[in-house]
Amino acid sequence: MEYDRNIPLLCDYYEYTMANGYVENGLQDRMVYFDIYFRNVPDRGGFVIFAGLEQLVDYITNLRFSDSDIEFLRSKNTFSEGFLEYLRDFRFTGDVWAIPEGTPAFPGEPLVTIRAPIAQAQILETFALLTVNHQTLIATKANRIVRAARGRTVLEFGSRRAQGTDAAILGARAAYIAGCGGTACTVSDKWYGVPASGTMAHSWVMMFDSELEAFKAFCGLYPDNATLLVDTYDTLNSGIPNAIRAFKEVLVPKGINKFAIRLDSGDFAFLTKQARKMLDEAGLTDCKIVVSNALDELLIKDLLDQGAIIDAFGVGDNLITSHSDPVLNGVFKLVAMEVDGKIVPKIKISENVEKITTPHFKKIYRVYDSSGMAIADQICLHDETIDTSAPLELFDPKATWKRKTLTEYSVKELMVKVIENGELVYDLPSLEDIREHCREELDTLWEEVKRFANPHQYYVDLSQQLWDCKAKMIHNPRP
Amino acid sequence: MEYDRNIPLLCDYYEYTMANGYVENGLQDRMVYFDIYFRNVPDRGGFVIFAGLEQLVDYITNLRFSDSDIEFLRSKNTFSEGFLEYLRDFRFTGDVWAIPEGTPAFPGEPLVTIRAPIAQAQILETFALLTVNHQTLIATKANRIVRAARGRTVLEFGSRRAQGTDAAILGARAAYIAGCGGTACTVSDKWYGVPASGTMAHSWVMMFDSELEAFKAFCGLYPDNATLLVDTYDTLNSGIPNAIRAFKEVLVPKGINKFAIRLDSGDFAFLTKQARKMLDEAGLTDCKIVVSNALDELLIKDLLDQGAIIDAFGVGDNLITSHSDPVLNGVFKLVAMEVDGKIVPKIKISENVEKITTPHFKKIYRVYDSSGMAIADQICLHDETIDTSAPLELFDPKATWKRKTLTEYSVKELMVKVIENGELVYDLPSLEDIREHCREELDTLWEEVKRFANPHQYYVDLSQQLWDCKAKMIHNPRP
Repeated sequence: MEYDRNIPLLCDYYEYTMANGYVENGLQDRMVYFDIYFRNVPDRGGFVIFAGLEQLVDYITNLRFSDSDIEFLRSKNTFSEGFLEYLRDFRFTGDVWAIPEGTPAFPGEPLVTIRAPIAQAQILETFALLTVNHQTLIATKANRIVRAARGRTVLEFGSRRAQGTDAAILGARAAYIAGCGGTACTVSDKWYGVPASGTMAHSWVMMFDSELEAFKAFCGLYPDNATLLVDTYDTLNSGIPNAIRAFKEVLVPKGINKFAIRLDSGDFAFLTKQARKMLDEAGLTDCKIVVSNALDELLIKDLLDQGAIIDAFGVGDNLITSHSDPVLNGVFKLVAMEVDGKIVPKIKISENVEKITTPHFKKIYRVYDSSGMAIADQICLHDETIDTSAPLELFDPKATWKRKTLTEYSVKELMVKVIENGELVYDLPSLEDIREHCREELDTLWEEVKRFANPHQYYVDLSQQLWDCKAKMIHNPRP
Repeated sequence: MEYDRNIPLLCDYYEYTMANGYVENGLQDRMVYFDIYFRNVPDRGGFVIFAGLEQLVDYITNLRFSDSDIEFLRSKNTFSEGFLEYLRDFRFTGDVWAIPEGTPAFPGEPLVTIRAPIAQAQILETFALLTVNHQTLIATKANRIVRAARGRTVLEFGSRRAQGTDAAILGARAAYIAGCGGTACTVSDKWYGVPASGTMAHSWVMMFDSELEAFKAFCGLYPDNATLLVDTYDTLNSGIPNAIRAFKEVLVPKGINKFAIRLDSGDFAFLTKQARKMLDEAGLTDCKIVVSNALDELLIKDLLDQGAIIDAFGVGDNLITSHSDPVLNGVFKLVAMEVDGKIVPKIKISENVEKITTPHFKKIYRVYDSSGMAIADQICLHDETIDTSAPLELFDPKATWKRKTLTEYSVKELMVKVIENGELVYDLPSLEDIREHCREELDTLWEEVKRFANPHQYYVDLSQQLWDCKAKMIHNPRP
């Protein structure tokens, strides 16, 4: 039903020049491992919500090059016929591991690991990163906004300010995973089951000879879902009185008391208190108050702190673009290669210390205390196992003298195998299940990790073996 | 060749509830006028570069609803069969005026005006806004970065951090309009002719037994386009010496001296001076230096002010997301309707003064001084004409006592008719022509309007007739 967003040439040109070079040098089948991970949490938050895996899997398992793609590449006079032939027969034959969508994740840990012949893995880079970076970014931002609303409904209203079609459509999906109650974007409902809703814009009010007439017409049309926009002319002196009259004349006589007003401008701390008073005095105590206008998590927190009386928030561009920090800086890095059947770790050194990679094929354990709260993640070599009957020593790879020994704890492996030999081997969960998984996982994080200002820095540690491997390679990085 | 991004249901749900209401109330054929305009320039800049018209036109002229779209809407139990029938036969039959792509534009002036039956116009809102908002945003940001580079090449490298596929693909198009020299995004070359290029990532270097071997292999493969990434292990002590050796061993003997190095980390002010010295001392004075790493217009300006020696910049997420201000707040507002063949202006009042609309069907004149420099835009009623043989009085609608009378001046009407009765009547320019138009138009703006900090505020005035109409309606807005 969806449009096909799996665009093979949505790929940085250098991936083709490199892949062509691998083919020309006979290196194309060397098995390598790439990790996708990020370095910083947007908005200086404590964690991200991983999202986008479903689209990534769909892309990897369906990637094919059409004749016209091949013809275009040939026209660049850069690539060998052998390489173009290679692309013509392209099928991904490798393995992919990932953490499940909706899982909170932390800087430095692999979200996705790809094991594949180098020429295959290399050309996944751009699409894989943009998919993971974008949806994870929006899920992370949306969850901040949902947390600020303290149990009130948050609706995603941002399509018109989104950075292109996919940003609107998949942004709504990511926002729903992270706890939004729904979206204005109709096609996200059709394709993904994100509940779409909406009622009226100012133009509706302006199309009628009077505001009251516009409101009454709307109540008559949608008696079960009448949310009247009250700020077209004058909120307190016209909009709300006319809404009250319309509700009382059209809906109350039918026994309906489920309706709402929406404010889209003005001082919400003041206006919502006035509105609540006017509605209550009119006997419309069940009438909900919805607000929308350049909201974000900090404004919502501030409004609620001021005692604004609000039942639901419509949030637009600040959510759909993650306005205050619109980039998740996920990267795609070579971490190992197989030589004669043995896994050889690889490292990239950098003048910027944070750009140094963590080598090797890895896995992640999330470590919980005896009450079930998550206290640290430990990144291990792929073949390590944590024996929970023995004490576990954690240490901070940025300050290795900071050590902590756990005795009562449990662990969960985070990454699951998603693709094996090019075939999907993972039961992709429904969107509702991903959303529920997100909610459950968030319940295992301390409030201190979730706060907006200076969140507690959750520990992401390396196992002793992995640390030893990395430390050795930092001193002697070259092959 | 492109994928079909014209998704009819990429539409805020309220547009359907309203359109259904218009049909149910027999209002669907009332002719109305909607303007698309924006309120603030991102990054507190002096102007935007309008972009996205080609995609908007494609959307409007091709908008159709499939059986599955209709079926989905029916399943919501909200819409009448009459409305679903209306959608099944949907064709846009109205008129559209717009300023040409690549034109600098200012807050408050219509970028696009749509005249159509209300039910048709209403459901264009979301897609029209997101298309114009996104591409205009990115073109505007890209032009800031291009201006900062002072004639040096700027390449768009941001796909991996873009907010979804369209953000990457059309972002590259917008960046090219605004003066970038090319993109890393291959499909933007195939579909739009934005020149794509790229050479190697760190993984290429790590795939070989030594950095030198990796460089020599690359020079051998791409003798005419060898840009070697020199920061995988140690820029000054390994990367640059190995690059020099590879160039001298593989390319110089063939008489080739067109090659480059790329730095992706470290202190560019320091490293590029060192690099230039090392290259020059090796006799490679023609070797270019390319840098990339979280650059934006302010960093580029700062690097050049420090004397960094750079030939080209690769700019990623700060460009492709307009990181420092990732939203253009364009809106879609009803400004007039036709009643008995007469155009009746409409206004929306707001508690937020900046949200008050400018009513009526309008056009824009750009006013030039005798040297051909743009000095103001005047928004007029659609049927006004400026007689350049008479003096022209300009006045600021925010401070009407600020008046200025011009005697020697010329004018150009900015908006062109793009669609008439649903048919394209405009010769859509090629991307190269749009880019050239942008360059020419920018030459008519004063440097004071183009600077980054506190740019001169370009005047966007209303004609006396339009101002009188607006002032009267502010005092008596309701129909």
